[in-house]
Amino acid sequence: MSTGITQAAKTDTGTRLFQLKDTPFPFECGTELSGINIAFEAYGTLNARRDNVILICHALTGDAQAAPPDIPRYDFDGIEEISIAPTGEFGTPHNGWWADLIGPGKALDTNRYCIVCSNILGSCYGSSGPASVNPLTGERFGMAFPEVSVRDMVRLQYRLLQGLGIRRLRSVIGGSLGGMQVLEWAILHAEFIDSIIPIATVARHSAWGIALNTAARQAITNDPVWQKGRYREQPAKGLALARSIAMLSYRSASSFNTRFGREQSPNPPHSPIAFRNQPAADFQVESYLRYQGKKLVERFDANTYLYLTRAMDTHDISRERDNLESVLASIKTPTLTIGVTSDLLYPIDEQRLLARYIPKVEFKTVYSDDGHDAFLIEFEQMGRFVKEFLG
Amino acid sequence: MSTGITQAAKTDTGTRLFQLKDTPFPFECGTELSGINIAFEAYGTLNARRDNVILICHALTGDAQAAPPDIPRYDFDGIEEISIAPTGEFGTPHNGWWADLIGPGKALDTNRYCIVCSNILGSCYGSSGPASVNPLTGERFGMAFPEVSVRDMVRLQYRLLQGLGIRRLRSVIGGSLGGMQVLEWAILHAEFIDSIIPIATVARHSAWGIALNTAARQAITNDPVWQKGRYREQPAKGLALARSIAMLSYRSASSFNTRFGREQSPNPPHSPIAFRNQPAADFQVESYLRYQGKKLVERFDANTYLYLTRAMDTHDISRERDNLESVLASIKTPTLTIGVTSDLLYPIDEQRLLARYIPKVEFKTVYSDDGHDAFLIEFEQMGRFVKEFLG
Repeated sequence: MSTGITQAAKTDTGTRLFQLKDTPFPFECGTELSGINIAFEAYGTLNARRDNVILICHALTGDAQAAPPDIPRYDFDGIEEISIAPTGEFGTPHNGWWADLIGPGKALDTNRYCIVCSNILGSCYGSSGPASVNPLTGERFGMAFPEVSVRDMVRLQYRLLQGLGIRRLRSVIGGSLGGMQVLEWAILHAEFIDSIIPIATVARHSAWGIALNTAARQAITNDPVWQKGRYREQPAKGLALARSIAMLSYRSASSFNTRFGREQSPNPPHSPIAFRNQPAADFQVESYLRYQGKKLVERFDANTYLYLTRAMDTHDISRERDNLESVLASIKTPTLTIGVTSDLLYPIDEQRLLARYIPKVEFKTVYSDDGHDAFLIEFEQMGRFVKEFLG
Repeated sequence: MSTGITQAAKTDTGTRLFQLKDTPFPFECGTELSGINIAFEAYGTLNARRDNVILICHALTGDAQAAPPDIPRYDFDGIEEISIAPTGEFGTPHNGWWADLIGPGKALDTNRYCIVCSNILGSCYGSSGPASVNPLTGERFGMAFPEVSVRDMVRLQYRLLQGLGIRRLRSVIGGSLGGMQVLEWAILHAEFIDSIIPIATVARHSAWGIALNTAARQAITNDPVWQKGRYREQPAKGLALARSIAMLSYRSASSFNTRFGREQSPNPPHSPIAFRNQPAADFQVESYLRYQGKKLVERFDANTYLYLTRAMDTHDISRERDNLESVLASIKTPTLTIGVTSDLLYPIDEQRLLARYIPKVEFKTVYSDDGHDAFLIEFEQMGRFVKEFLG
């Protein structure tokens, strides 16, 4: 197993790069690739037995920076990692997407645990993916990057943890696509983990989830700027629309209605639609969706969006194994599964299904109007459940 | 009031055209237009007092043909209408979108009532709209057609009924955008109607509904073929994607999952996405969405989609009137409102809101997993409610 060692330059910026270097990584699709990178952050302190680690798995457009910048980063003994910009080439500075869960005394307690969060394989925040430069061509891989699966993501995370000398995980936690990885962890590396916490996720991606991803991908591939993935500039209109479509599944009718109502701003100059030469007044929610789209274009790569949504669609813990019930029943790891009452993307029945077949399971409900995104919002409820479960 | 009379040529095909001819029609946006057409169908027989009429209002992509072809069409005495192809220039032959509700002995009983269904203003199935040819230019109106509101649709329906010599409506019934018209009927022409039946609809379009329409419109205006509405050929990719997005809001997670599961067809030749030159296998639900998109492109005009979704977005029975509660309380017409348990687009709470403030109201629930589209599917339940209410 290669431990990634190159240039020094450790800094206080949070994200480190680990490189498989010459060890090829075998993708589930059959391709092998050398020189795979994996970006990660670590908080808290590794204990002497190197077994107090909690791994956080992030969701579709997430990155390795789960904690706020002021939480000290942990550097592993004997391992030299490269410091990179906190969110790689893409991305904008932020406060950590699970900031409220991580820190001294918090649910993911940096006084007790060493918390690791790595950017998933195929993403554009430092780990290798379609936005990475192919050393053979000097160009981005684009659609020539191998197809990525959730199992690939987990196998690469395992390589990272082995490379860092970690002996055991106290828990693996994540929501949405992160939760899919969590479930695969319990199947691929059960011997390595003490518990799992899959949140707002599914045992296999549903037709419903696939349909939503299909529409988002169509938005990108419809954009003539996309050029079958060989764009120089992002297919901005397509990617922005993909984000709008996704935002609809991340929230709920009630959250949109409470937040935006029917407020309008008259005659926005940017409105693409003019009825009888009169620009249509913008409803506030239209401006919001446009803004969310623009923000994603600034921080996320369009081909990456295709790859990672495809990985969600092929996610199925029963694939090439057994029937779903048997595979769930084979998970002997103690499990806390958390669902959100208003989740339209992965309705709470999906988590009830996990709870029905996994033998050692606790099932908790987050009461929220914020839909699927509640796993990035309802820290008080989630924090309480996680703390009790780990405690 | 002009009664539309021109060429004879009555046939058995179902759809008739009524023309305002030289009488200008004043749109709510301030524009007047002459030569407005309205396509309609009628079933059953008008009684001597000309007051046994039920008006059906159709939804976004609906047309005047609510009943099956074998239900005899009624021709109004003294009024000569033009026969047109059943669905105008656009559209494909079908069996009537509310076939199971209309006929002898059915909920909308052609032995008792004269049933009228007209194609809404702004649509592309015979009535005037952006797809109509502007006589001044010889080209389609496109985006030069005046902006249309739900109130405009109702006012034009009223002109049609007056032109046909109808004295009174027993009821006005419709789902979705049709239900929005139904509610406006009870406010604009309360003196003309005995009852209303708004189904799976809203008193004012929600931020949620606007957001869904925004994404669908973006899909169309993103398509370079759209050309700000001056296309010669339909912006097929954009309109198909708009339909995919809409289909997601018309159904439910459960209906998609039950119907499609995770079935795949390997390597579809038409897949726009190829990971490392390998076309992504198509999930069945992806093929389904593509098929639905293609079907809509064949039968519906893209600019029309922009106009009618905009009319939904500006729908608000309280607009320029009073607060919503007072406007609902002012509806003295006996009302049956029907909601669908799994409706994601207009959650059943929207219909509970109607029932809370309209004074003479019955509220019925359709139990269904089919989401919003249940109003086009659950005929047994709806038929029973409507029959009881009208009886």
